[in-house]
Amino acid sequence: MVVVMSPEATDEDVAAVVARVEGVGGEAFVSKGVVRTIIGLVGDIESFHHLNLRTLRGVADVHRISDPYKLVSRQHHPDRSTVWVGAAGRQVPIGPDSFTFMAGPCAVETPEQTLAAAQMAKGAGATILRGGAYKPRTSPYAFQGLGVRGLEILADAGRATGLPVVTEVVDARDVEVVAEHADMLQVGTRNMANFGLLQAVGEAGKPVLLKRGMTATIEEWLMAAEYIAQRGNLDVVLCERGIRTFEPATRNTLDISAVPVVQATSHLPVIVDPSHAAGRKDLVVPLSRAAIAVGADGIIVDVHPDPETALCDGPQALLGAELRELAQAVRRLPSAVGRVDAGELSRTA
Amino acid sequence: MVVVMSPEATDEDVAAVVARVEGVGGEAFVSKGVVRTIIGLVGDIESFHHLNLRTLRGVADVHRISDPYKLVSRQHHPDRSTVWVGAAGRQVPIGPDSFTFMAGPCAVETPEQTLAAAQMAKGAGATILRGGAYKPRTSPYAFQGLGVRGLEILADAGRATGLPVVTEVVDARDVEVVAEHADMLQVGTRNMANFGLLQAVGEAGKPVLLKRGMTATIEEWLMAAEYIAQRGNLDVVLCERGIRTFEPATRNTLDISAVPVVQATSHLPVIVDPSHAAGRKDLVVPLSRAAIAVGADGIIVDVHPDPETALCDGPQALLGAELRELAQAVRRLPSAVGRVDAGELSRTA
Amino acid sequence: MVVVMSPEATDEDVAAVVARVEGVGGEAFVSKGVVRTIIGLVGDIESFHHLNLRTLRGVADVHRISDPYKLVSRQHHPDRSTVWVGAAGRQVPIGPDSFTFMAGPCAVETPEQTLAAAQMAKGAGATILRGGAYKPRTSPYAFQGLGVRGLEILADAGRATGLPVVTEVVDARDVEVVAEHADMLQVGTRNMANFGLLQAVGEAGKPVLLKRGMTATIEEWLMAAEYIAQRGNLDVVLCERGIRTFEPATRNTLDISAVPVVQATSHLPVIVDPSHAAGRKDLVVPLSRAAIAVGADGIIVDVHPDPETALCDGPQALLGAELRELAQAVRRLPSAVGRVDAGELSRTA
Amino acid sequence: MVVVMSPEATDEDVAAVVARVEGVGGEAFVSKGVVRTIIGLVGDIESFHHLNLRTLRGVADVHRISDPYKLVSRQHHPDRSTVWVGAAGRQVPIGPDSFTFMAGPCAVETPEQTLAAAQMAKGAGATILRGGAYKPRTSPYAFQGLGVRGLEILADAGRATGLPVVTEVVDARDVEVVAEHADMLQVGTRNMANFGLLQAVGEAGKPVLLKRGMTATIEEWLMAAEYIAQRGNLDVVLCERGIRTFEPATRNTLDISAVPVVQATSHLPVIVDPSHAAGRKDLVVPLSRAAIAVGADGIIVDVHPDPETALCDGPQALLGAELRELAQAVRRLPSAVGRVDAGELSRTA
Repeated sequence: MVVVMSPEATDEDVAAVVARVEGVGGEAFVSKGVVRTIIGLVGDIESFHHLNLRTLRGVADVHRISDPYKLVSRQHHPDRSTVWVGAAGRQVPIGPDSFTFMAGPCAVETPEQTLAAAQMAKGAGATILRGGAYKPRTSPYAFQGLGVRGLEILADAGRATGLPVVTEVVDARDVEVVAEHADMLQVGTRNMANFGLLQAVGEAGKPVLLKRGMTATIEEWLMAAEYIAQRGNLDVVLCERGIRTFEPATRNTLDISAVPVVQATSHLPVIVDPSHAAGRKDLVVPLSRAAIAVGADGIIVDVHPDPETALCDGPQALLGAELRELAQAVRRLPSAVGRVDAGELSRTA
Repeated sequence: MVVVMSPEATDEDVAAVVARVEGVGGEAFVSKGVVRTIIGLVGDIESFHHLNLRTLRGVADVHRISDPYKLVSRQHHPDRSTVWVGAAGRQVPIGPDSFTFMAGPCAVETPEQTLAAAQMAKGAGATILRGGAYKPRTSPYAFQGLGVRGLEILADAGRATGLPVVTEVVDARDVEVVAEHADMLQVGTRNMANFGLLQAVGEAGKPVLLKRGMTATIEEWLMAAEYIAQRGNLDVVLCERGIRTFEPATRNTLDISAVPVVQATSHLPVIVDPSHAAGRKDLVVPLSRAAIAVGADGIIVDVHPDPETALCDGPQALLGAELRELAQAVRRLPSAVGRVDAGELSRTA
Repeated sequence: MVVVMSPEATDEDVAAVVARVEGVGGEAFVSKGVVRTIIGLVGDIESFHHLNLRTLRGVADVHRISDPYKLVSRQHHPDRSTVWVGAAGRQVPIGPDSFTFMAGPCAVETPEQTLAAAQMAKGAGATILRGGAYKPRTSPYAFQGLGVRGLEILADAGRATGLPVVTEVVDARDVEVVAEHADMLQVGTRNMANFGLLQAVGEAGKPVLLKRGMTATIEEWLMAAEYIAQRGNLDVVLCERGIRTFEPATRNTLDISAVPVVQATSHLPVIVDPSHAAGRKDLVVPLSRAAIAVGADGIIVDVHPDPETALCDGPQALLGAELRELAQAVRRLPSAVGRVDAGELSRTA
Repeated sequence: MVVVMSPEATDEDVAAVVARVEGVGGEAFVSKGVVRTIIGLVGDIESFHHLNLRTLRGVADVHRISDPYKLVSRQHHPDRSTVWVGAAGRQVPIGPDSFTFMAGPCAVETPEQTLAAAQMAKGAGATILRGGAYKPRTSPYAFQGLGVRGLEILADAGRATGLPVVTEVVDARDVEVVAEHADMLQVGTRNMANFGLLQAVGEAGKPVLLKRGMTATIEEWLMAAEYIAQRGNLDVVLCERGIRTFEPATRNTLDISAVPVVQATSHLPVIVDPSHAAGRKDLVVPLSRAAIAVGADGIIVDVHPDPETALCDGPQALLGAELRELAQAVRRLPSAVGRVDAGELSRTA
């Protein structure tokens, strides 16, 4: 940490800062400038936070100079991690060597629709099946998902197609039942800062897919991952899904730069959700291509056998020609940026 | 709803939209233009949403033309509501006729600190005591609050000063215990879209203070209030606390316009939190003045007997001269805009 | 400036930074921490910028620790300034002791409409007349203003009512002619970073009203004022007019906090434009009240004798009951926050 | 346009809207709903704008339902355009069939530095040389460019390497001299809404590179292109260069979705500037790859022979290994998405 004193600060003001820092076992290095003095702090950052240095007389500003997250940081864990998803029979990797394609319906509606979507996903090359049984909706009058019945339908579709399944959990009270039916637990964009839920999935013993809050900075997102990691679960995959900006042409603005930024600072894998970012199916294929090329460790995409009747986010679900085009991109582009399809790296016990 | 057809749409495309709308019992009025056709829909909006009209061939756009919230809307409830907070012995109003000043420490730390802050609050004219026992923090390493013990300390300070208390609840599993100790339940900015929590506080039988999500639109905020109202609880007070923008000089940007915008569309009371919006104590007094003048139904402010040692948000807590200046503004300004101090309107059983 | 080295930086890396700083006459103070080293720089900041320290090996970050603006900063000019607008005959102050109400039509359309609006403005208590002869419009097909003819009409209306006039200049080539007709030159939100125009108005010998770029930080806004000041013109009045955010209920989000933030860091006067911020006339009165209460040095408001036929921004122009309500607020509220109406402080030669 | 009446609107209110629309030669189709009435307008949109329908009694909202730009729209010009840059001797295409790589120094500093950068650019496969002689800088104390001398140096470097040159013009008064020395005129992000400048480059007879305003919507950006087109110049290339968001990890947030969004609505070519979007050289290669994969018609990248001494934006300039990596991506990836290198399609008279 660096404490910047204001030009009017007196020697007593400087001494007060130094005394306070030393009082919690830290060291303070004073650099007296012509206009102002700066003080570099060395020691335990958490203890410095409690000092409220910003409230002391003569203090103009306090800069933090190191990352606030630890377990998910690449600093002490330089190699990027691979997270394995699935039961003993078949595990699919998400990590730096592979490219993992996840697909499925936004919401689980019926056994037939879910199985059809799972078969579409598998046919297009997906190796993990997605689908929602609990849907957080802005309106209390919108379809909220089938709950436990949806979990069962999704698990059946996963078994029928041989794909591990990932599904969202929206309430800490549901973590146990979701973990019974799913291979990976998803925390959605609206719950990224629901710290009780983060802690609960951190203790559930299953890998977690953590979507970025639509208005969270990358640092806040990594702090949310730290909440999960702190409970003993390092099998966290991050998912960039668009942030809120002033641009109305897309539902959210896909922050494609977040992928290399995260990879530079955290060892966790990071994937992209082009469907929810754009909210428009005509953008899913180009954004998926961009995600592959930028170096994402995977993508997660909405598919639906009949988007016109979908109970949730129909306008962004792929089928037919667009899905074929996506399948082709997923088959060809990853190798152009040094990736192997995750299906080929799957392991069986 | 209005469906706008693309210039290339055919008569069959238009007929398909009409047929689908009529299929769910709606009416469709077709206006054929020189360049394009528009179709006005009349009937049950929820049923129209399931039609996914946007996915039909020839449809360029679909505009919603009425508000998606109902119970909190002023449309069927033109008079603005007053919410009463407190037990039978003493109830404080929040509503269009009064101006309600709430104050207290950001976090409950010790009985002594809490009581001292409560006395400061009361001395400055506050009629409701705030204080946090459960603190949602970005870092898992930061102080997370005292939990149940904090609730007890806060309730004691409320009794000692005769002030009703409001405190935050961050997890649906804690709603019951918080409702036992507090007169009003606060849902914080990070949980505005935690729909399970909203439903739980909607059933708790206590008034709710609903902070705006720091990145929520006003419409989303009112939809969150609708979640609470839908569970039978219409005693909801909205709290504007700043939104996330690109401006770094303040922690968030206080959206002062939100106050009259909300008052024009919803009957619920709306107050302002200048402390968390700015994150700087030098702005609390001017922003409080602005809140009073714009017509807010109240403010909620951080005070602390010793900000330098505060475990949470010390830099924004008031004391001494600033608190006296605030007290003066709260005493004088509301009458200049036609308000009476809430303390004078309090009622006892 | 503070240079933060990365944990992997070597002693040679540190030495290279020090050498470079000393090479341009600066001093470097090295603080070696357990994890990383920080280097405090003292000397001429401009020369340090050219060093591109961020590109050196081992450098993790570079923090600026003092304000980049000088002439407009309060640091060397602690007293807040008053800017006087008008010709020798009658000068109106804008500054810390007064409250200045400016009003007029968004666009000058005809002599009759402009005179009528000027009389409305004066009747409501305005002491400066606003009106646009050059209108920057998003669409090339929209009304672009009357140009020189508009300047003449506006000047006539100013003379007829005895009010000094302020009008926008959008092109450096027009500065001379605008300065001939107007008492104050306005630089609009879209031109805040049009540096050639800023320099031109800096040399025009008339006070300048500098609107904040709708997406400019406060620091960038003050840097724009610095461009004007650097050309010898310190008669700059800043105008907060809303920033671009994700909230669609208002055209822009009025950043009311910007007023006290600017007043804390710059000695220049700062006013508020509630009409353009909100884009809705029902918000103009409450936002004007908030502006007065927060401590703004004035407001600037759209009025029009017939908003339904206005060629520009009709939906936000006041008349009738709303204008009377505003007039009342302007008459009463400023004294409640220690201000005198600017009209009473006007001086005549 | 669609006019939505409020639920309280009377038949007279509806009749007043209809009368007004018919008064300017338009047609109005009334659809009476159970709750509210909507009116579809057919005719000349510009004339409807002047009606200020939003100010009429009983009008709740007015929706525009078609694009406000015409000349740059794909609606009447479905085939995507190719813009040719360069003199008769050698012309380089930017358009749907090719991929165009532009590179060069952010600022022209000396003949040696510029020539070295031009040779680096050419060596890496660039076919157009970029370089700034007029630099719009936030600070009046920062390096502002060499002006005319810079133009000469850049033109010399272009001749020496056989590359056409593109350079920024920041003031309408400089358009003529810039057009004498450059093959393509760039309008920078800060000047996107400088309408006088747009009109001036629209009349200069050279192709224009129009950067997106860092806070402009895509629609506003296309309206700016319309300003240029309206003066007779359809040789406009759009350049996405990042937008302002709340994320601090990158200087701006590259809106990669803007590329396919623009291509769906406008026939103009669109390229990407990863250097200025990110402001970090470690992101330039991955973002360039993403730009190619998403379908951009080209990229423009900062290179510098000695970034440590660069007078402008040194931290983002490439050299050495990174430039070789970029060269490889530019050579290989475009063909994977169906593009040919622009160099191969160049034409000579």
